[in-house]
Amino acid sequence: MAGSSFGNILRLTTWGESHGPKVGCVLDGFPAGMELSEEDIQVYLDKRRPGQSSLTTQRRESDLVHIYSGVFEGKTTGTPISLVIDNTDQHSKDYSDLADCFRPGHADFGYYTKYGIRDYRGGGRASARETACRVAAGAVAEKFLKELGITFSFYTAAIGEVVLDPKAYDPSLLYATPTNFPDKKADADATALIEACKARKDSVGGMVRGVISGVPAGIGDPTYLRLDACLASAMMSINASKAVGIGDGVFAGMRYGSQNNDAFYTDEDGVIRTRTNHAGGILGGITDGSDIVISTTFKPTPSIASPQETVMTDGTPKALSIHGRHDPCVVPRAVVVCETMCALVLLDAMLLNMTARAENVKNFYLHRDSTI
Amino acid sequence: MAGSSFGNILRLTTWGESHGPKVGCVLDGFPAGMELSEEDIQVYLDKRRPGQSSLTTQRRESDLVHIYSGVFEGKTTGTPISLVIDNTDQHSKDYSDLADCFRPGHADFGYYTKYGIRDYRGGGRASARETACRVAAGAVAEKFLKELGITFSFYTAAIGEVVLDPKAYDPSLLYATPTNFPDKKADADATALIEACKARKDSVGGMVRGVISGVPAGIGDPTYLRLDACLASAMMSINASKAVGIGDGVFAGMRYGSQNNDAFYTDEDGVIRTRTNHAGGILGGITDGSDIVISTTFKPTPSIASPQETVMTDGTPKALSIHGRHDPCVVPRAVVVCETMCALVLLDAMLLNMTARAENVKNFYLHRDSTI
Amino acid sequence: MAGSSFGNILRLTTWGESHGPKVGCVLDGFPAGMELSEEDIQVYLDKRRPGQSSLTTQRRESDLVHIYSGVFEGKTTGTPISLVIDNTDQHSKDYSDLADCFRPGHADFGYYTKYGIRDYRGGGRASARETACRVAAGAVAEKFLKELGITFSFYTAAIGEVVLDPKAYDPSLLYATPTNFPDKKADADATALIEACKARKDSVGGMVRGVISGVPAGIGDPTYLRLDACLASAMMSINASKAVGIGDGVFAGMRYGSQNNDAFYTDEDGVIRTRTNHAGGILGGITDGSDIVISTTFKPTPSIASPQETVMTDGTPKALSIHGRHDPCVVPRAVVVCETMCALVLLDAMLLNMTARAENVKNFYLHRDSTI
Amino acid sequence: MAGSSFGNILRLTTWGESHGPKVGCVLDGFPAGMELSEEDIQVYLDKRRPGQSSLTTQRRESDLVHIYSGVFEGKTTGTPISLVIDNTDQHSKDYSDLADCFRPGHADFGYYTKYGIRDYRGGGRASARETACRVAAGAVAEKFLKELGITFSFYTAAIGEVVLDPKAYDPSLLYATPTNFPDKKADADATALIEACKARKDSVGGMVRGVISGVPAGIGDPTYLRLDACLASAMMSINASKAVGIGDGVFAGMRYGSQNNDAFYTDEDGVIRTRTNHAGGILGGITDGSDIVISTTFKPTPSIASPQETVMTDGTPKALSIHGRHDPCVVPRAVVVCETMCALVLLDAMLLNMTARAENVKNFYLHRDSTI
Repeated sequence: MAGSSFGNILRLTTWGESHGPKVGCVLDGFPAGMELSEEDIQVYLDKRRPGQSSLTTQRRESDLVHIYSGVFEGKTTGTPISLVIDNTDQHSKDYSDLADCFRPGHADFGYYTKYGIRDYRGGGRASARETACRVAAGAVAEKFLKELGITFSFYTAAIGEVVLDPKAYDPSLLYATPTNFPDKKADADATALIEACKARKDSVGGMVRGVISGVPAGIGDPTYLRLDACLASAMMSINASKAVGIGDGVFAGMRYGSQNNDAFYTDEDGVIRTRTNHAGGILGGITDGSDIVISTTFKPTPSIASPQETVMTDGTPKALSIHGRHDPCVVPRAVVVCETMCALVLLDAMLLNMTARAENVKNFYLHRDSTI
Repeated sequence: MAGSSFGNILRLTTWGESHGPKVGCVLDGFPAGMELSEEDIQVYLDKRRPGQSSLTTQRRESDLVHIYSGVFEGKTTGTPISLVIDNTDQHSKDYSDLADCFRPGHADFGYYTKYGIRDYRGGGRASARETACRVAAGAVAEKFLKELGITFSFYTAAIGEVVLDPKAYDPSLLYATPTNFPDKKADADATALIEACKARKDSVGGMVRGVISGVPAGIGDPTYLRLDACLASAMMSINASKAVGIGDGVFAGMRYGSQNNDAFYTDEDGVIRTRTNHAGGILGGITDGSDIVISTTFKPTPSIASPQETVMTDGTPKALSIHGRHDPCVVPRAVVVCETMCALVLLDAMLLNMTARAENVKNFYLHRDSTI
Repeated sequence: MAGSSFGNILRLTTWGESHGPKVGCVLDGFPAGMELSEEDIQVYLDKRRPGQSSLTTQRRESDLVHIYSGVFEGKTTGTPISLVIDNTDQHSKDYSDLADCFRPGHADFGYYTKYGIRDYRGGGRASARETACRVAAGAVAEKFLKELGITFSFYTAAIGEVVLDPKAYDPSLLYATPTNFPDKKADADATALIEACKARKDSVGGMVRGVISGVPAGIGDPTYLRLDACLASAMMSINASKAVGIGDGVFAGMRYGSQNNDAFYTDEDGVIRTRTNHAGGILGGITDGSDIVISTTFKPTPSIASPQETVMTDGTPKALSIHGRHDPCVVPRAVVVCETMCALVLLDAMLLNMTARAENVKNFYLHRDSTI
Repeated sequence: MAGSSFGNILRLTTWGESHGPKVGCVLDGFPAGMELSEEDIQVYLDKRRPGQSSLTTQRRESDLVHIYSGVFEGKTTGTPISLVIDNTDQHSKDYSDLADCFRPGHADFGYYTKYGIRDYRGGGRASARETACRVAAGAVAEKFLKELGITFSFYTAAIGEVVLDPKAYDPSLLYATPTNFPDKKADADATALIEACKARKDSVGGMVRGVISGVPAGIGDPTYLRLDACLASAMMSINASKAVGIGDGVFAGMRYGSQNNDAFYTDEDGVIRTRTNHAGGILGGITDGSDIVISTTFKPTPSIASPQETVMTDGTPKALSIHGRHDPCVVPRAVVVCETMCALVLLDAMLLNMTARAENVKNFYLHRDSTI
């Protein structure tokens, strides 16, 4: 099925398996004329790259990105941008004993029942390696959003029962701790927790929070392309995610209206703002100019070295212990994936929004200087 | 923007404002040959219909649905099904003093900043009245899914701090209590809570849970059309929803892998099953044959009669008390909206899945009897 | 299948059968703030309306359009525009003897083999009555394009062997002759030809030509959304069309490059223009600022009163003479269908084009006055 | 804009510029389990490859295709198939003097007005080199269609005024003559014509005809996804195409209904067939089981060595003579492009068609053996 694409005006298509020769993507519909280099993208990929601390998988991928189209003389041309990353450190042999069994918590069984065939090496298409492509493409989108004055603060908000202390939040620590907690104490606690999990052949879940600032009011389309619906879909499409909340998320269900409504007021510059931001910047699917706040929950890595009960392809029971190189907690590396996916969704919505008013369309076509 | 449609093979387009003459929808791509009557749909609309208890808005809509196309001699024909519902009990005058101000917690401000114009009567397009169309179309999808052996159990799981007691869950109470809690005690407690909210001019939030049983393994498409991503988008597109979780949802973030993985085993009939269902029936975006479990959080109704701070269109402050006929809690009436939206998403995924294997395509074209 | 919609940012969905109670459509993504009344649309529907001369079907439909959503206080709101037309003059009995046989040249056999069921009354969904919805929606698009300085000249270019004499082309005769030839002599000749066909129970084909002026250069997207590809699809989706050509169309295949290339020059106002317009205003799928020229060929009406060979549903032979009220030539009434379909495609392309340059996106978001 | 993709269930996305390092594509939604090798694809690419005779450009591309994803152990897996072809024989210097001027008949001016930037080397994205990707992906689709019993006969039908003599049509000559005329005399005449064009620095247009046999009745979706509309869009999206016709195409406009209708009869095997095939196998957008016949007109190559009038980017006049390596007639190499594009469209329509009947959906889900 054609499910490897998403977006409307800006559309991403990804391809590639964990243990194939390469993974890549095509980002189509990106506006022409923005400066773009491989280095701009590499910065983001390096935030996702494994093997950087003892907390992540020891698979060592250089994850060097190549731009094969859509950029000419250092600028985007409006044509599809093809990004390709070589797979260089596959240990496919590690997976040969998984060819005939279904790993609990993984997509193996689903792929097999759906397609009758699967590339079992490293999870094949279901591997989180696919998210490298999301990061590469999202880096392009985020670069442009930054030029529009929009900023992103994404970080680890929870790992197991270690939770970010909002008072300790230190923006200078974004992407600066092994766990990606922007809080030294939480980072230390979570590091200990993950190390303990690893030692006892277990894994642990957590939550990523994202805050996007500087988004103008009026972005997002009503009904089925609501910005929160598009963001929710994007977050839930990331490997191992199980829940997503906007603003106060699940806590909104425990509140009264008098507590939850965000009052409007006009600030000294004459800008309409909200006193609080329970809504997370989105009302009725449209931004209100407040920070967009989004939380995504990730389950514990299903690949654990402890023995587990499962079955073979033919249904016979098997006791399974998964060896190989796995992150004991996916959250730290998922932060940049969430961030760049949100960038793709947001830029698409902002492009769509440009045609919302007849007046703007008229200004565009009647008042521009000439045909060129 | 063309955001009033969703779905792939099965595609729903809705239209209409709260205080326009009618609301309606077009369901395209529905397979031909299923028996369908207006009564089949009315049963679902009646579950959503307001004015049925003291807990809901006193707006009295008969919500009678008309089928204007796509059905011939009692059967679907494969052509688009047009469903229309008259708006009969608008009190537009109630809203005239809202024309120039932005209600906190509502989409007013977003629509105004986006479009520069809005139908302020009853929320216009942003009104939850739009969900009547979702229910009507989803009823058609759910009828067919039931013929495929799939069953739906959707209910209120929480209202404020009143939470369903899993041990008290009584399937015979589905859609049989005013709050839609399938648990007499929770229903009584929540009724008291909602009445109290109403008395003090406040509102309260809550959660809807849905369980879908009988779905075959292998449904859902990897990457961006994962079934959980599509469901999350659908739930987050419903008015007032703020969070969605699959299976254990946010609790998965607090767990260890050894607790969270669902072990596979083969049952006495030779069917591969899971011992537990933390995953909520979906792994890697594809069903595993277990029950699909989905939870959606709704914020408290933003329309409250208590005084609130807000601003006028021109930015001048205004003290606002919203009168009119509003549900003090949207959760009871949202249950059937969640249910039918899930039906639309699931049927679409099941149709998409039919082409996943070359072998099935060959069987379809090479082994059917004749051209007719 | 979800084939009843087309367009990207601007998206039309139509519904309804020839002999159902109503036909209608939903036009989504139309920009907010344009003045729109039912009268604006009715003007176009009246150009398509049957029963206006002896040359067309005597079915008498008033074809009055109702706007049920998307317009508030006389202006579009950016939400989906629902347009509905009642069917008032069905003679379904005329069709009862067609229930069990396949009319040659019609879609009956296709619908039956595909769906196993069909609404045989008046062709059901396959009736050209569906084009009333295209005209209604296209009228909305064309109104806006006119406000952008774009003009449409669509007319009958050929009926049978009667061909428009370019020298006799009189723009004041657009939609002013029974045949829609903008040429008195051709109109008279074609009228005689159609009357003769009618008298001998036959029908005749022809061609519609359209010229769209004032379109800026740069409209249309490369590769698969080329403007000519989108126009070709739109034209070929109209009932009875069998060929479409851009600019010189099929004659381009008989030419040399030195004849066919349109030389560029700069006019006295400094605008880059072409000396000739063999290309019909589109190169590489993108407009060059010249007139868009498009020709669509229609086959003769397949419903003829002369006896024809066909078969029943069960395959037994049947001699068929089709009675009922049919246009002996579809071309005159197809002119406005072609015109309005082109308007829908062109407006969609112009909306898409607004995001082509990063510079324009920046101007939009960084230099607009405020959030409102 | 996201215009580099097309298709619904089966969706192709292409990327790459003529003088970039590579061109490639992603074919998503292809069913799992079909055997596929690079050799299967190479056969088709070799039919398109330039430099094979004196009639085509002397650019020498080996056009070796790499499969980078979506195939495992020799079979498709249902995941996106990434195909990449290296560009090895660019002579970018040939184009440096074209950087600042607009070639007549080319997309240069359109790209420049749209994007404000363009890769001028060899036409960049607008180069027909992009069609190599279409052929590669279409080869995959056609392989599967052949397994379903469908056959393709595509050939040159006209070059300039040299027209195929239907009586001389020899299927054994398909892809066996330099001009791709399946008729020795026409091939010889056209060869002489092309050589003469080349000698006098000119080019010539022509027509490709395609016949697809063995397609079951019932394929194609009504209204806007009619099979003929989808085919027309696909053909018109090919570089240099200017017209497309189904069946008798433009000739249908010159006919009477009594001549043009194809009578139905039942053959000795009980299959309903048509006596003639003026309709080209498609009625109302749905196949009737007859051969699909489609004709596509190509203009003469716009790159000619004769002097032409044009302007520079700044509007100043320039006398241009285009040197470089160009096909004096695009038709011979366009044949396989048309063929494989039709294969992509047809397979997509056949996949979509599998869900048209509720009965078939029920059979699929209720009567298959088990979950696996």
